[in-house]
Amino acid sequence: MADKKPLSGYRKDKGVLWISSYVGNARVKMDYKIKALLHYEQSPFQEISIVDTKGFGKMLVLDGTPQVSTGEGFIYNEMISHIPIVTHPNPKKVAMIGGGDCGPAREAMKYKGIEQIDVVELDPRVTELCRKWLTPNSYYENDQRFTMIHRDGYEWIQEQKGKYDVLMIDRPDPVGQAKKLFSSDFYKSVYDGITDDGVVVFQSGSPYYNVSTLKGTVKNLSKLFPIVKTYLATIPLFPCGLWSFTIASKKWDPLEANINKLQHQDTQYISPEIFTSSFVLPKYVEKIVEASSE
Amino acid sequence: MADKKPLSGYRKDKGVLWISSYVGNARVKMDYKIKALLHYEQSPFQEISIVDTKGFGKMLVLDGTPQVSTGEGFIYNEMISHIPIVTHPNPKKVAMIGGGDCGPAREAMKYKGIEQIDVVELDPRVTELCRKWLTPNSYYENDQRFTMIHRDGYEWIQEQKGKYDVLMIDRPDPVGQAKKLFSSDFYKSVYDGITDDGVVVFQSGSPYYNVSTLKGTVKNLSKLFPIVKTYLATIPLFPCGLWSFTIASKKWDPLEANINKLQHQDTQYISPEIFTSSFVLPKYVEKIVEASSE
Repeated sequence: MADKKPLSGYRKDKGVLWISSYVGNARVKMDYKIKALLHYEQSPFQEISIVDTKGFGKMLVLDGTPQVSTGEGFIYNEMISHIPIVTHPNPKKVAMIGGGDCGPAREAMKYKGIEQIDVVELDPRVTELCRKWLTPNSYYENDQRFTMIHRDGYEWIQEQKGKYDVLMIDRPDPVGQAKKLFSSDFYKSVYDGITDDGVVVFQSGSPYYNVSTLKGTVKNLSKLFPIVKTYLATIPLFPCGLWSFTIASKKWDPLEANINKLQHQDTQYISPEIFTSSFVLPKYVEKIVEASSE
Repeated sequence: MADKKPLSGYRKDKGVLWISSYVGNARVKMDYKIKALLHYEQSPFQEISIVDTKGFGKMLVLDGTPQVSTGEGFIYNEMISHIPIVTHPNPKKVAMIGGGDCGPAREAMKYKGIEQIDVVELDPRVTELCRKWLTPNSYYENDQRFTMIHRDGYEWIQEQKGKYDVLMIDRPDPVGQAKKLFSSDFYKSVYDGITDDGVVVFQSGSPYYNVSTLKGTVKNLSKLFPIVKTYLATIPLFPCGLWSFTIASKKWDPLEANINKLQHQDTQYISPEIFTSSFVLPKYVEKIVEASSE
């Protein structure tokens, strides 16, 4: 560290390395104790680091913000993938924008009926470093259904028309380049990119400190889709923990899905009961969602 | 601050005051940006401060650990009180150990059938400062059913025999003095302190970084009570968010409770649906609970 320029978010305190992630307009900060900085580089797109931590295992960090950990990444990966996949009765073509660690893709592979799994990730180095440090590619790249596309998701989706049964938008927070993934024309491109009975899911921010992200997502989707529903998971890696996903569907209602598909699924977080209960919102969250869908 | 001895957990950074709360053997740290330090004192029992924060409103801090905030305290207060109260079909006598802010007591007052509400808080200064800064006592102290008892909860409960229909154990983390509130003989005293069909609830720590607290609570309660169930809430104030409560009952099963009692209740978090879904545990949490109850 000492001989490198200081990395975003990193700080040494009494010889111990910490990474700090500010949220809610810097009102709250979460600090992660670092056991080892395994890798650091500046890619053409962002600052990428891989660290080993005491509380979360190995972690991918982009521009100083922790993205996913080996300790609890299964929560985010399962909740963004299984719910839209199970909501669609017979998904064949599945794609995800973002998520170069391929976590949601690995979950999708657990469904034999799925024939095509495309992952669109802007930064090839994110994919390569996740393969090297987080998940051996042997885990998934032998799966013939899997294709990695290194493109800008915003541009890529505009070329897809009525193609995907299930689309997962694993977008970063709405800052810098990623802002366009929260624009109303992006939502329209997503609508056009899925089939006539397609299902799409967005991570829609923290209902506690990220309310505007949740509001904007529900508002934009409600203008386009007949069925829009928000569900929650608690992700220990993220400050305040509570995180929202919003599913939008042209035909299939998640609350009428065949959740038994999850009965014998190889998962660590989601079960048929969790599928259903994740749509039950605390009153203060329900208020935000209802106000935004009017 | 400058002319005071440094307070536990507080730190000035570029002129901004922060309070840091370490958890999980200091693997993770949560920092709260302070707008104003409203009050600080060393009571005979602990270091007490009241702060105003950007993210959580006013906060009670004990020995450097944030306890409750005006911004989201309703979550903890509602979840530790309404669930045991509704689980018992006809509670008359209710008590809580800890929680000098009287949050759970104010929730209990919403039930007309309850005739007696006793709050046992070790430190009178906590009560007085919460009254002054967090909740005007006018909100609840005119309620004739309410009694504040400034005693050591561990000693107090040993004098109670078959007395309470509902008991809430709003204990701090298992450090220092509070350790005895996690000892097996304390659980036995609690069992003896409630009626033959009594219900008791404990905050049982974070299932993510506090696993031993959850395990120990379930294990101890399972030895004494026929019905022991863990439920969850996400509390943004607490690092990692996910928090567990464990309810133990001599006769009444929470999953058979008349949740309609919550239908028109004046709450911000809990609803009949949240009551039920809070008992649905993610697979990785269910594993911890099942392993502990064997």
